Formats: sequence, C-alpha cells, structure tokens
Amino acid sequence: MAAPETRPGLSRPGFTARLPLSPTESVCAMTYCVAMNLASGMLFASDSRTNAGVDHVSTFRKMQLFERPGERLLVLLSAGNLATTQSVVSLLRQRAREERESGHILNVPSLYEAACLVGETLREIAHRDGPALSQSHIEVGCSFLLGGQIKGEAPRLFNIYPQGNFIESTTDTPYFQIGEAKYGKPIIDRVIQHHTPVEDAAKCALISFDSTMKSNLSVGLPIDMLLYGRDALDGGTHKRITEHDAYFQSLHEGWGRALREAFAELPPMSWDK
Amino acid sequence: MAAPETRPGLSRPGFTARLPLSPTESVCAMTYCVAMNLASGMLFASDSRTNAGVDHVSTFRKMQLFERPGERLLVLLSAGNLATTQSVVSLLRQRAREERESGHILNVPSLYEAACLVGETLREIAHRDGPALSQSHIEVGCSFLLGGQIKGEAPRLFNIYPQGNFIESTTDTPYFQIGEAKYGKPIIDRVIQHHTPVEDAAKCALISFDSTMKSNLSVGLPIDMLLYGRDALDGGTHKRITEHDAYFQSLHEGWGRALREAFAELPPMSWDK
Repeated sequence: MAAPETRPGLSRPGFTARLPLSPTESVCAMTYCVAMNLASGMLFASDSRTNAGVDHVSTFRKMQLFERPGERLLVLLSAGNLATTQSVVSLLRQRAREERESGHILNVPSLYEAACLVGETLREIAHRDGPALSQSHIEVGCSFLLGGQIKGEAPRLFNIYPQGNFIESTTDTPYFQIGEAKYGKPIIDRVIQHHTPVEDAAKCALISFDSTMKSNLSVGLPIDMLLYGRDALDGGTHKRITEHDAYFQSLHEGWGRALREAFAELPPMSWDK
Repeated sequence: MAAPETRPGLSRPGFTARLPLSPTESVCAMTYCVAMNLASGMLFASDSRTNAGVDHVSTFRKMQLFERPGERLLVLLSAGNLATTQSVVSLLRQRAREERESGHILNVPSLYEAACLVGETLREIAHRDGPALSQSHIEVGCSFLLGGQIKGEAPRLFNIYPQGNFIESTTDTPYFQIGEAKYGKPIIDRVIQHHTPVEDAAKCALISFDSTMKSNLSVGLPIDMLLYGRDALDGGTHKRITEHDAYFQSLHEGWGRALREAFAELPPMSWDK
C-alpha cells in the first residue's frame, strides 16, 4: 500500500497542518462505508484503513457477515472507535454461538429486530467503556450500516447511530454512508436511484471511494465490496479491491481524465460586470 | 431563492433525520468559502447563507473588503458563529476609523501582520463572549480566510483558525477552504494549481459551490466572487451570482450532464471472481 505521505493532494502542508489529530481522532478508525438497497440487489463497500494518527496506519476489515445460507444474510459495516465496533461484533457472534435465549443475530425474525440488537449491543459497550474513555476525552462512539435479507422479508438496510437508534432506507433514499462520507457523496447523490443496476452502483461506489481517497488519507485501499442479489439468500459475491486491481486503476484514471475534460469543455467565467 | 426543502437530494428523510441540528449548529452560520492565490491573481468566493435551523435561513454577506486604493486590498471571508465574525469585522473597521495607534487593518505594513490582527481580535471576542456561550453549549468559534496585497509585498493568503493562529498558502497549496468544504474539495484538488488561469479558477470555484449546494442545504446562493489581478492594488472585480445567473445555471446543468456522461462511458464492474 502506498504510504499516506505520498497520496496526491494530501501531503500538502496546508491541509495536514489545518487538521491536527485531536485525542479523539487519534484513536478512532476513520473510514468510509457505503451501502445501497436497490431494486435488483444490495451493494456494500467499505475501506479497511484504521488510523491512530497518520504515522500509524493499519488495515482492518470493516465488513462483517452473519449468514445462514438459504435463510439469511446480514452485512454489518462499521465506522468509528475500533475497540467499540470490535466489541459489538464479538458480542453479537458470541451470543449467536451460545444461542442466547432472548434472541441473537442469527435467529431474530426480522432485520428490524437485528438492527435493534446491534443498537442495544452498542449501548451496552458505550455504557461499559464510555466513562473511562470520556475521562481521557476519547469518543467511544461508532456508527453501523446493517443490511441484508431474512427469508420472508424484502432486503432491508439500516443506518445505526452512535446512540443506538436507527433509520431505514427507502426507495427515495436507497443508500447510506458512514464515516468520511462527504467527499464521496456528490457523485452518489447524482447517480444512484432505486432502479440503478447494481453493476452501475458498484462503479459509482468505487468512484466515490476514489474521490474520498484523493481528499482524505484516513480512507485507503483495499476496499471490500459485496454484491447481494435480491432473494438469493446466499453469501453474496465478495470482491476485495487492492492497489493492483486493474479495474479500479482504470476507473481512477478514466474518471480523473473525464473530469478534467468535462471541466475544460465548460466555458470560462466572464468578468464583464 | 428556492426554499431549502425543495433542493434536490436534501429533503430526503435519511439525511435530514441523520443530522439533527444541535444547539451549537442552530446558531452557527454554516457556510462555504474558498480563496486561491494563483500566479496571475487571486480569487475569493463565499456563499451568503446563514442558518439558525433549517426553518430560519437568512442571507448575510460573508466577504468583507478593506481597501486603500493604490496601496492595499484585503479580503476577509468568514465561516462560523455569525455574532463572532460580525464583532471581529466591526472592531477591525472601528479601529481603522479611529486610526488606532497600535496599528489597524488599514495601516499594518504586511499581510502577515494583518493576519495577526484578525487573530488577536478573534481571541478578544472569544474571551469576551466565550464563557456565556459555553454555558449554553454554543460554539463561539469561527474561521477566516484573509488574502490580498499590500504595496511592496506579493499577494498573500492566510487561513486563520478559531484559536487565532494561522497558516499561509504556498505555491504547492495555493488555496484554502473554510466552512462546509468537503463536498466541493475533490474538484478543486483535481484542477487548481499555482499556474491555473483565474478564469478557470472561477469556473472551478463555482463547480465546487454547485457540488456543495447539491449535498448540503446550509450553503446557498447568492455567491459573492471577487477577482483580484496581481499587483493591481485596486478593489478587484466583484460579481454576485444569484439563482438567475445564466452562467451559473449553464455550469450547473453542463457539469451534471458531463458527470453523468463520463460515468456512463466508464465500464461497469465485472463480478467474476
């Protein structure tokens, strides 16, 4: 992986100087995740950069799958404090293994209840770890995207806030982003609609990541992508995009060139008063 | 001006629900400003939206000029708490009128010292108003971009932080943004270099505003733009872009169309493993 110092547009003195890492940021996993619930299927994408300061960059998978083939696939993407997100995932997995009586991620009857479960588990960790962290001015918080399908329901997608409450996607708003979402939002806002084919959605998601990585070094390759076809109830199709991925390289170059050409073709501003 | 509720991509339940206005945000002037110090001149642009909650949207000019024709032009762009930014500007103007002995914005001998003066004045207001505001959990802070030219110096540009310290632009980083900067940063990162002609810089700044306004309703028309030609030592050329501006409309439509076309021309992702 390229060292963050060499990423174009990011090693500039103005911007690194402008955003010194606060104690809060220095232990948080800034990241970028996007999930889309479209007519023909669902798309999930997450980067895997975890940073505790720019000189300490690691790779952690931020996409977790909970499956019962033929019955359910749940995909959980996370952004925020890595200790918190890992604890939530560990407890969700442990309680599913133990077949907890009050319900667990692999037997709750709806995705809505799965989202409740993730929210509750997040509150549990925040309650346990929050006081000690806040003494050190460290944010315990994190966000999740939870999507997938449970047999008997349509595919559903939820955006779970650091407080544990959540909202669900709609056909009007078929996508959610968490983490460092802003740089990559304009292209998604322009392209993605409920009926966008998933292949186009994947292309759009990768362009969105490319824009984000160009403007923020806390988001980096590899990117985990998962495509889930509506009603398949399988594990979906996973793809990991590394720096050697020819398609991502071609998108990176093609999109940059297309933007510069589009920019050059628009007329310059006239300053006549 | 279009009501914020009708702005495309912003009235979606997911995103408005995701970002409830906190007490802090409800009294802050979110905004977007960009300034560029290029080989042939300087470009300044600021929106004029001030919001205290989405149902209370006003227009305030965020670009202030301090001029002595033939000797200096200083341009101050502001983002953040409107009470603070207005107080800073009022004091800078009052002290220039009073010809304050210890120096003022119209007689300090360098732009560096003008940036010090703005930073000091900001600290003065933060000291005066901060305690009362923090009792109500309201941010006193704001950011400034200060640029221009004083006779005997080259044009200079400074980014002044809420703490009153500041950084200066360089030929490597010839631009700064403050406020809601992220949505509009990718196109600037891709296009702007020290030798970019100012006409292209103006076009790029407007596209950057268009992307920002598409993704965030707290930034809105009109946009104030000022073009200053290197060594002119005049008041520059001002242009106010309203919703009726034909050039901005053509950029808005042309850029959206060009992005969709560029997107369509790139190959879709293949999911063969």
